[in-house]
Amino acid sequence: MEAWSWPPSEDRGHTPTADEPYWYPERETMDPELREEAILRRIGEVMTYAYEHAPFYRRKWDAAGLEPGDITSWGAFEQVPVVTKEELRAAQAEHPPFGDYLCVPRSEVVRVHGTSGTTGRPTAFGIGGRDWKTIAVTHARTMWAMGIRPGDIVFVGSVFSLYMGSWCALLGAERLGAAAFPFGAGIAGQTVRAVNWMSQMRPVAFYGTPSYALRIAEVARENGTDPHDFGLRIMLFSGEPGASIRPIRRSIEDSYGAEVFDTGSMAEMSPWAHLAETTSHEGMLCWQDVVYTEVVDPDSHARVPFRGEGTPVYTHLERTSQPMIRLLSGDLTRWEAGPSSCGRTYPILPKGIYGRIDDQFTVRGENIYPSAIAEVVSSLRHYGGEHRIIVSREETMDTLAVQVEYSRELDGHVDGIEAFARTASEALRTTLGVNTRVVPVPTDSLERTEFKARRVIDERELLRAVLEAS
Amino acid sequence: MEAWSWPPSEDRGHTPTADEPYWYPERETMDPELREEAILRRIGEVMTYAYEHAPFYRRKWDAAGLEPGDITSWGAFEQVPVVTKEELRAAQAEHPPFGDYLCVPRSEVVRVHGTSGTTGRPTAFGIGGRDWKTIAVTHARTMWAMGIRPGDIVFVGSVFSLYMGSWCALLGAERLGAAAFPFGAGIAGQTVRAVNWMSQMRPVAFYGTPSYALRIAEVARENGTDPHDFGLRIMLFSGEPGASIRPIRRSIEDSYGAEVFDTGSMAEMSPWAHLAETTSHEGMLCWQDVVYTEVVDPDSHARVPFRGEGTPVYTHLERTSQPMIRLLSGDLTRWEAGPSSCGRTYPILPKGIYGRIDDQFTVRGENIYPSAIAEVVSSLRHYGGEHRIIVSREETMDTLAVQVEYSRELDGHVDGIEAFARTASEALRTTLGVNTRVVPVPTDSLERTEFKARRVIDERELLRAVLEAS
Repeated sequence: MEAWSWPPSEDRGHTPTADEPYWYPERETMDPELREEAILRRIGEVMTYAYEHAPFYRRKWDAAGLEPGDITSWGAFEQVPVVTKEELRAAQAEHPPFGDYLCVPRSEVVRVHGTSGTTGRPTAFGIGGRDWKTIAVTHARTMWAMGIRPGDIVFVGSVFSLYMGSWCALLGAERLGAAAFPFGAGIAGQTVRAVNWMSQMRPVAFYGTPSYALRIAEVARENGTDPHDFGLRIMLFSGEPGASIRPIRRSIEDSYGAEVFDTGSMAEMSPWAHLAETTSHEGMLCWQDVVYTEVVDPDSHARVPFRGEGTPVYTHLERTSQPMIRLLSGDLTRWEAGPSSCGRTYPILPKGIYGRIDDQFTVRGENIYPSAIAEVVSSLRHYGGEHRIIVSREETMDTLAVQVEYSRELDGHVDGIEAFARTASEALRTTLGVNTRVVPVPTDSLERTEFKARRVIDERELLRAVLEAS
Repeated sequence: MEAWSWPPSEDRGHTPTADEPYWYPERETMDPELREEAILRRIGEVMTYAYEHAPFYRRKWDAAGLEPGDITSWGAFEQVPVVTKEELRAAQAEHPPFGDYLCVPRSEVVRVHGTSGTTGRPTAFGIGGRDWKTIAVTHARTMWAMGIRPGDIVFVGSVFSLYMGSWCALLGAERLGAAAFPFGAGIAGQTVRAVNWMSQMRPVAFYGTPSYALRIAEVARENGTDPHDFGLRIMLFSGEPGASIRPIRRSIEDSYGAEVFDTGSMAEMSPWAHLAETTSHEGMLCWQDVVYTEVVDPDSHARVPFRGEGTPVYTHLERTSQPMIRLLSGDLTRWEAGPSSCGRTYPILPKGIYGRIDDQFTVRGENIYPSAIAEVVSSLRHYGGEHRIIVSREETMDTLAVQVEYSRELDGHVDGIEAFARTASEALRTTLGVNTRVVPVPTDSLERTEFKARRVIDERELLRAVLEAS
C-alpha cells in the first residue's frame, strides 16, 4: 500500500500522470479483505497513539474497561464506545481551546476551524501541519477520481470561513496541481459576479452546495446567460444531501451539462471527502484507507451487514492532531459492498447520506438544531410557549421559517407583535447564521408537544417525496 | 543578500528563531545604496525575462524605442513607460483569460484571483506556484516584523474571495508557522460570531479592514464583551487607508489595547504587504527587495525626491507569472528615506497611502469608480440625466448613497419613483458589490457637471479633516 504508515508518512509530492485513473492504485483497488486486515492493525496503532496522547480517550476507554491492545478483531472494535459531538464540546469547555483530545503540542496547530456552533459553544478544530497535508492529498485523490487534472481551473463557489468543505476542495485542487479559483459565496451581489467570472474564466470544475449551484444557474438565466456556456465538465458537492437526490441531481446536470459528484462526511472529520463519488456514479464510496467507515445500528452501535441501513461511525486512520475514533455521525445511510465499476473496492453508499437519526437538519449548509431554536425563542420576553419550525425550499434555496407564539399581553398590539417578530428574527439569525422568517401567532395556536422533533416540518422532504414519485 | 536570485530561488523553509527581529537581516538592514545597485541589476533581469516571455511588454517597449539592455541607470529606468490598469484589462480582453503578459505556461497557474471589476471587465490574476510561495514568504517577513511568531493564533477577519489581502495574511501566517484562523467576513450574523470566537480562542493577531475592526468592537460592546478581553496584541490592516489615519488608529488601539500596523499595495501587486509597518511605527516601509516602489510625479512619472509627494509606481522583483514593471498605482503618498528605528533601511511612507490622483475611492475595501456608477445609473430606463455620489461613515462603517434624478414622466408617481430607486439600488449593488442607498430626486435638482470627480462627495474626508483638526 502506497504511503501507508503510522504516523502518516510525509507527503513526498507523488502525483500520477494525467492518464492514470487512480492516485494510489494499490490502496484503491486492493482486495477488500486484505485492506480490512491492514486497517485493523492500523486501528490498533491509532488507538495506542490516542491512548498515550489524549487524556480524553484514556479516560473514556478506562471507564469502558478496554485498552488498545485488546482490539485484535472487528468484534472487539465494535465494543469501543462511540464518541459523540457533545463529548467533544464538553472536553473543549473543560480544556480550552482544543479539548484534551488534541494529541499534538498546541504549537504544532497550523489551522483553526470549527463548527457553526448552533447549540451553544462551538467546537474548535486544531489541525496540525502533517494532517493539513494529508487532508490535501486525500481530496486530491477523490477529485482525481472525478477526472480533475493538473491545470484545470477549479471554481470554489462556497463560503470560506469555519466550514471545512470549501477549504478541502481548495486544498485538493492545489495539491493535484489544478488552478484553484476560490471565489467564495455569501456576500451581497456575489452570485451575479460568479456568473460573470465563470463566463470569463470557463472553469473545468465547480465545488459548492447543490442549492447554490441551482441558484447560480437561475441567476445566470435571468441575466441572459445559459449555464452550459460556462463549459463546466465536473461539479462536486457537499454540505447538503441534494447531489444524491435524483431530481436535484438531474436538474443540476440539465442546467449545466456537467457530471455531478456527491461527497461528504461531517465537520469533525476532515478530510471531508472521504465519502466521495467517482466516475462510476454508483453512490459515494467510503475511502476506507483514510477514514474507516462503519454503518452501524443506531442503538447497539454494532455494524449492520452490507445492504443494511444505519448510521455511519467514523475512525481516522491518518490524522494525528485530533483523531476521531468511532465518532457517531447521527446521519442515515445504507451501504453495499464494492467494487464499483471504476475498479475501486471500497464499500458504497448508493443513495448517499439521506437523513438523520436525530432531528438535526441542514439549511444552506448550516447544521441547525431545533434545540438551539427552542433556546432562542423561549428566552424572548413575550414568548407564548410554543413554536414550529418550517424548512422549505423557495425556488432553489432552502428557507427557514419559525412560527412563534407571542404572549397574551401582546394580543391586539400590532406594533408590539411586529417588534416581537423582529427581535426573534434577529436573535435567530445571529445564533443560527441563516436568515430566519418569524411568523408571530397568538398563544395556544399551536398544538403542544413534548417531542422536539415534531416541532420541525421539513417541506423539502415532502418536495423530495413528490419529486421521487414523479 | 539571502535567497536573492532571478528567477527567485525555491523557498527552502528558512524561518528565524523567535528572538530574531529580522527574517532576512541582510536584505532588510543593508546599506540602501548597495541595495539600490542590486535592484537595478535585478530590474534588468526581470525586464529581459518579461521582454522574452510577454508580447505585452515587447510591444510596449518596442513602441517606446527601448529594450531591457538599455536600463543601466535609474535615469533610464524612469523613462520606462508606466503600465496602467486599463492596459491590463485590454490585454486580457484580447488574450483571455490572463492577458499576453502572463509569462508562465497556463498549466503552471495554481491560483486564480481578480479585481472586483467595478468598471466593466474584471482583471484576472494568474499566479504561478513559485510566486505563490514568494508571496507567502514576503507576508511571513512583514508579519514577523510586527512580532507575530510561530504558534500564535492569527484571526483573519476579512472576506475570502477575489480580494488578495485575506489570502496573503493567511499565507503569511501559515508560512511563519502561526496557527491561521481564516474566519472570513461578510456573511449574515458573522460579526457576533467573530466576537464569540475571539473570546473563545483568544488569538494573538487580527487581520482585517479598520472599519470592520471598529464594527466588531462595537458589536462586542453591544453584547457585553470588552474587546480588550480578546487578548489581541497585534492588529494588521489593509484594504482601506484607515490604519494610517491617526484618530481611527487611536480608536482601534483604545478599543482593543493592541498594537496597530498598516499594510498595503494594490490588487495587481501581490505580494500585497510589500508596504508594511513595523514595530518602529514610523509609517509603512517600502520592502524594496521584493517590490521596488518609486514615488513619482503624477504627470512626468519621474521620481520625486525624499520628503516629496507623488504617486507610487511598483515593479515586481520576485514574481515570474505576471510581473508588473512600473505599474502606476494612482494612489497618493509622501515618502522619506530610511532607516527606521527598527533597523530596516527601507524608504518610509510616514502617512501611509492617503489619497488618489484620480477619483477612485474605496468603500468597505471595495474599489469604486464613479464611472461604473455613472454607467449603471445612466442605463436606467427613467434616468433623469444627473446624479451625485455621497460616501459617508455611519458609526464605523462606510456607507455609499447615490442621489439619482428620475425622468419627468415619473413626476408625481410615487410607486414608479420607488420602483426606480429599487431597480437602481439593486443594479448598483450587483455591479459594485456593496449595498448602495439610492435617493431619487426630480430632474434638474442637481447641478450639471462635466467633471465626474465632482460627482463624488466623500464625507469621510470631511470627517477626517475634522478629526485631524481636533
